[in-house]
Amino acid sequence: MIGLFLLFLGAKIGEELARRLGQPAVVGELLGGFVVGPGALALVVPGDTAAVLAEIGVVILLFAVGLEVRLDDLLAVGRPAVLTALVAMILPLGAGVVVGLGIGEEMFTALYIGLALAATSIGITSRVLAELGVLDRTFARVVLGAAVIDDVLALVLIGIVSGAATGDISGSTLLVAVSGFGLIGLGFAAARRARGLRREVFTWPLFAETPLVPAFMLMFAVALIAAAIGLAAIIGAFVAGLIVAETEAREELEHEIRPLGQIFTPFFFAVTGAQLDLSAMLDLPVAGLAIGLALIGVATKAAGGVIGAWSLGRWSSATVGFGMVPRGEVGIVVANLGLAAGLLTAGLFSAVLVAVVLTTIIAPYLLAWSIPRASAEASASAGPELDARGAGGSP
Amino acid sequence: MIGLFLLFLGAKIGEELARRLGQPAVVGELLGGFVVGPGALALVVPGDTAAVLAEIGVVILLFAVGLEVRLDDLLAVGRPAVLTALVAMILPLGAGVVVGLGIGEEMFTALYIGLALAATSIGITSRVLAELGVLDRTFARVVLGAAVIDDVLALVLIGIVSGAATGDISGSTLLVAVSGFGLIGLGFAAARRARGLRREVFTWPLFAETPLVPAFMLMFAVALIAAAIGLAAIIGAFVAGLIVAETEAREELEHEIRPLGQIFTPFFFAVTGAQLDLSAMLDLPVAGLAIGLALIGVATKAAGGVIGAWSLGRWSSATVGFGMVPRGEVGIVVANLGLAAGLLTAGLFSAVLVAVVLTTIIAPYLLAWSIPRASAEASASAGPELDARGAGGSP
Repeated sequence: MIGLFLLFLGAKIGEELARRLGQPAVVGELLGGFVVGPGALALVVPGDTAAVLAEIGVVILLFAVGLEVRLDDLLAVGRPAVLTALVAMILPLGAGVVVGLGIGEEMFTALYIGLALAATSIGITSRVLAELGVLDRTFARVVLGAAVIDDVLALVLIGIVSGAATGDISGSTLLVAVSGFGLIGLGFAAARRARGLRREVFTWPLFAETPLVPAFMLMFAVALIAAAIGLAAIIGAFVAGLIVAETEAREELEHEIRPLGQIFTPFFFAVTGAQLDLSAMLDLPVAGLAIGLALIGVATKAAGGVIGAWSLGRWSSATVGFGMVPRGEVGIVVANLGLAAGLLTAGLFSAVLVAVVLTTIIAPYLLAWSIPRASAEASASAGPELDARGAGGSP
Repeated sequence: MIGLFLLFLGAKIGEELARRLGQPAVVGELLGGFVVGPGALALVVPGDTAAVLAEIGVVILLFAVGLEVRLDDLLAVGRPAVLTALVAMILPLGAGVVVGLGIGEEMFTALYIGLALAATSIGITSRVLAELGVLDRTFARVVLGAAVIDDVLALVLIGIVSGAATGDISGSTLLVAVSGFGLIGLGFAAARRARGLRREVFTWPLFAETPLVPAFMLMFAVALIAAAIGLAAIIGAFVAGLIVAETEAREELEHEIRPLGQIFTPFFFAVTGAQLDLSAMLDLPVAGLAIGLALIGVATKAAGGVIGAWSLGRWSSATVGFGMVPRGEVGIVVANLGLAAGLLTAGLFSAVLVAVVLTTIIAPYLLAWSIPRASAEASASAGPELDARGAGGSP
């Protein structure tokens, strides 16, 4: 329990310092977790319980983000979202393979490096978008839509690569693709049917004083189903949020979920930060490779966004790309798979891990830089409509 | 994660059935946990993470209860609370010793049986009081005050008995008593100084959009300090709630803490219910002893309340006694200590454990029966003042 308290405290002190220094709050939480964690002061070694709290934390975060997004708005950006997901996956994958082959590794090893750079984790970006209050902007919806597609694509690619590496490509990859897209399709259909659903649908159980507990159960269940298929649990939570967002219970739930997010979500960032192990950076070749991979990871995702979402404008498309930069736990999972398969050496593994965490720390800065510009760009092109919205508001 | 979901689901389905059948909701949560737990369907074996969520759940519950109590109101019932704590500890302790000696056990074994019957766990009662909306009644405050004193007394007694059993009574027992009462005294002093504290005291950190996160940290810290001393963490949380209740942030926090309680607290009751192991009941002597101990446990606590709080009236004093009936985790800890010291056989241990859980399940029924009568009694004796409060209310 004291370890959990220290993680929470570390995250909050880190956030406080970051804010006072004008840095992104989420970077403070990440570094706070790093400082109390095993990579620095070693006051805490996050165990299973911290991992579960972290997972619940990011699940609640994505559920809350889903609550603020309307299905129609998401579908309206389908084209740039799909394009972005594809380009922002192919570019880093290809670049990772080129680097891997360039440093003399064999093809499958290079593929694992590419895969670790290709997957996007939307947790960090969601937090930044929510914090800056721009979840209703077009670029935000494109990032979220692209992240959903990206997660299924990554799952399929991981299946293909690990299958090919072990010489065992089965029909299961197809099954994964079908079930991944199937779950999301079902979720969208459910969201459509949930439109305008009365609050009483949530509060008919006698245990439900408010819609919170039934909505929490839905979130938990869809997240678990997503995880069982092999998708990220957070994608399931996001879809559950989309469903609930269409109902009458939406606003009430936005209020009720906030305290839960405030308590749980810091654990996610603290635990993520605690995974940063800079001791690998003492090995110069590893450090060089890590930094190189991180830079390539940033550049290729940014390029993917600019190419995929160019129709949104210069800054908005860059923001979409920056939003895809954090690799997070998917990259870590891929690296672990590569290590387990004997395809990544300890040095390569460390380099990939550091690169993954670095992308996570860099992204909030890129977003903090581009989002105001993207917002200004969108307001300028949208003209009076958005101005009225910004100035007026409800009475 | 799926185990956690099943625990939550079991608790909520249990609650729903209990409510539909007119039973106390908390009994449904307990039995729901039992049904999915290892003692019945064995769908879940609660592990460390479930235990931590349960602990956080009951800590939040007691913090929320503390938020609804004013220090002056608690101090005003100091006399009956202290009397109740003493009598409702001595009677079950004595009765347990008599039973232990009566079945031919040696003195120290009998003392452990008595101790397990003597300690009160306030979690269940708090939930029932909150659910029935009677936390502002005098009898509720007496129970809470007595539970705080009871916890320190139990701690001291455990120290004396386990010290004597191992022939090693040191000054540490005195230290325990001093630090236990010291922490509570400090908490009360802090609550007095916190009176009227501005909301801005909570929201000066930039990370604190609302008072929730700083208040949560205070709760977490005081609970950890209490646990470090050897007190129950929930007593620390209750004291933290008392402190915050005196500040301007009180009402806002009451709102913010509610969603957290709705999500966390069911884990406490589900995990408690999952500890019920009825297989011991197949052994007739053990079953007989368990039921006997449970009945003695109920009768002696009820008598303790009636004697200690007689000045409150017949039904109110009985309610105070019934509120002390649940033994919960303190009784389980004592039983485990006795088992570890080699003083309790496996059979005795099982009997004590079943008796402890039975008191926990019986108590909500007793409270549901006595509280309406106690409320009526209080209203009748208080006359027009309380009538006006009941009928009128704020505009």
